[in-house]
Amino acid sequence: MVQLQRLTIAPNQILGQQIHLNVQQRHYLHHVLRLNEGDRFIAIDGRGNGWLASLKENALAAEMLEPVFAKTELPISVTLLIALPKNGMDDIVRQATELGVERILPIISDRTVLKPSPQKGDRWQRIAQEAAEQCERQIIPQVLAPMAWTAALKIWNSNCATCYLCEARGNYPHLLSSFQAQIEGSTGLTQARPSETQGSMVVATGAEGGWTGAEIEGAIAAGYQPVSLGSRILRAVTAPLVALSLVSAACDAINSRERLI
Amino acid sequence: MVQLQRLTIAPNQILGQQIHLNVQQRHYLHHVLRLNEGDRFIAIDGRGNGWLASLKENALAAEMLEPVFAKTELPISVTLLIALPKNGMDDIVRQATELGVERILPIISDRTVLKPSPQKGDRWQRIAQEAAEQCERQIIPQVLAPMAWTAALKIWNSNCATCYLCEARGNYPHLLSSFQAQIEGSTGLTQARPSETQGSMVVATGAEGGWTGAEIEGAIAAGYQPVSLGSRILRAVTAPLVALSLVSAACDAINSRERLI
Repeated sequence: MVQLQRLTIAPNQILGQQIHLNVQQRHYLHHVLRLNEGDRFIAIDGRGNGWLASLKENALAAEMLEPVFAKTELPISVTLLIALPKNGMDDIVRQATELGVERILPIISDRTVLKPSPQKGDRWQRIAQEAAEQCERQIIPQVLAPMAWTAALKIWNSNCATCYLCEARGNYPHLLSSFQAQIEGSTGLTQARPSETQGSMVVATGAEGGWTGAEIEGAIAAGYQPVSLGSRILRAVTAPLVALSLVSAACDAINSRERLI
Repeated sequence: MVQLQRLTIAPNQILGQQIHLNVQQRHYLHHVLRLNEGDRFIAIDGRGNGWLASLKENALAAEMLEPVFAKTELPISVTLLIALPKNGMDDIVRQATELGVERILPIISDRTVLKPSPQKGDRWQRIAQEAAEQCERQIIPQVLAPMAWTAALKIWNSNCATCYLCEARGNYPHLLSSFQAQIEGSTGLTQARPSETQGSMVVATGAEGGWTGAEIEGAIAAGYQPVSLGSRILRAVTAPLVALSLVSAACDAINSRERLI
């Protein structure tokens, strides 16, 4: 089986069954990939939609032949809230993308040392796009602008998703058993059209030193379940990858079904 | 509660209830940590043993007061066989150490590009020691000398451990469900003194491009169970961390018991 090349397009490039290609895309398809009229590639809009497409004359446009469904996407929408670590954020964005995250929100917590420049945000978004293309995802994770924890809790709380707060200290249940119980017990995840709450989850991990007591209390008040990632001591850069590994593995049990939301 | 400082010692530094300190250790305890006679620290031998110790006069020796038991160690011995990726091995050693691995064996597979210098091995061992101290482990993972896959299979096979081969292609059962079934079904892991096979596991991950057909066949012949890490496409540097995250999370279910081997 030939592996088809992938191209990210903007939704407004689609008109009817045609994709109108811009100069960069034309150059990439024709001169870099050396595709000619009638050659096929995969077009993705970065929002979960993909199509088998056939290049038209002079690479000005492409014909959309049929939708393709990604086997690489998780059956639920996962948002990672990550208190910015001192360094290592590039790797976290790259690996979180590999692990199927849909959205990354950098958090300025009480123990966050790094105050990122706006350029950093652009850089992380670019890394997410490159990683998404490399691991053949149809959704390009959005890297949102950094936000204070209290402000984030007003938006990302149990009104819109099942929320977990990872915290090393305290005797909390394990994320894996909590999440497995959640998805096995949830009828929503097995229905064709679950409510947004049942098909979305938020997982939050702390900076070096973890969350403060006030931050944990704020999260609990916003409907977060505090969970443990086990009895090992993980660095702030490792914890989000462990959390997402567990979430995606637990999702694999239901991944044979269609993407739910 | 005051967090006690940790010092790695060699087993041959112990005589009776005394730890004989060398010049570097004396300097570290006395001049760097500024400990004085009677001050306490944790001494670990890197093989799973640790003691609360009290510094003696002039920091020439320390009195072993009582053994301390690590809550950070996995209840089973985990060996990571990792086909050397092109780069990123430093981070893998560091994070695998955080995740509780006991031994790392770099593998020269058919698709391995990097041929590491002996200096690299020393560097990885140093990273493992630093990471083990940072995350308060009592076992310092051994980083073994790189080995060809066929040679490794003669030593690391189902005669000495439960062995899993992670492979993206092929319709293999998931590592998480396989391993959870293994530890739940295994009476050995719940006995006080299991056989070595039941208390040890090997997990092998491939280089960029995965294992070749011949390498997979060789592993199966050596008693490896081929397993999947899910339907996402993971880079060679991410796969071992995902595998170890799943193994350690599954182990947490039995971690409240004593370390078994």
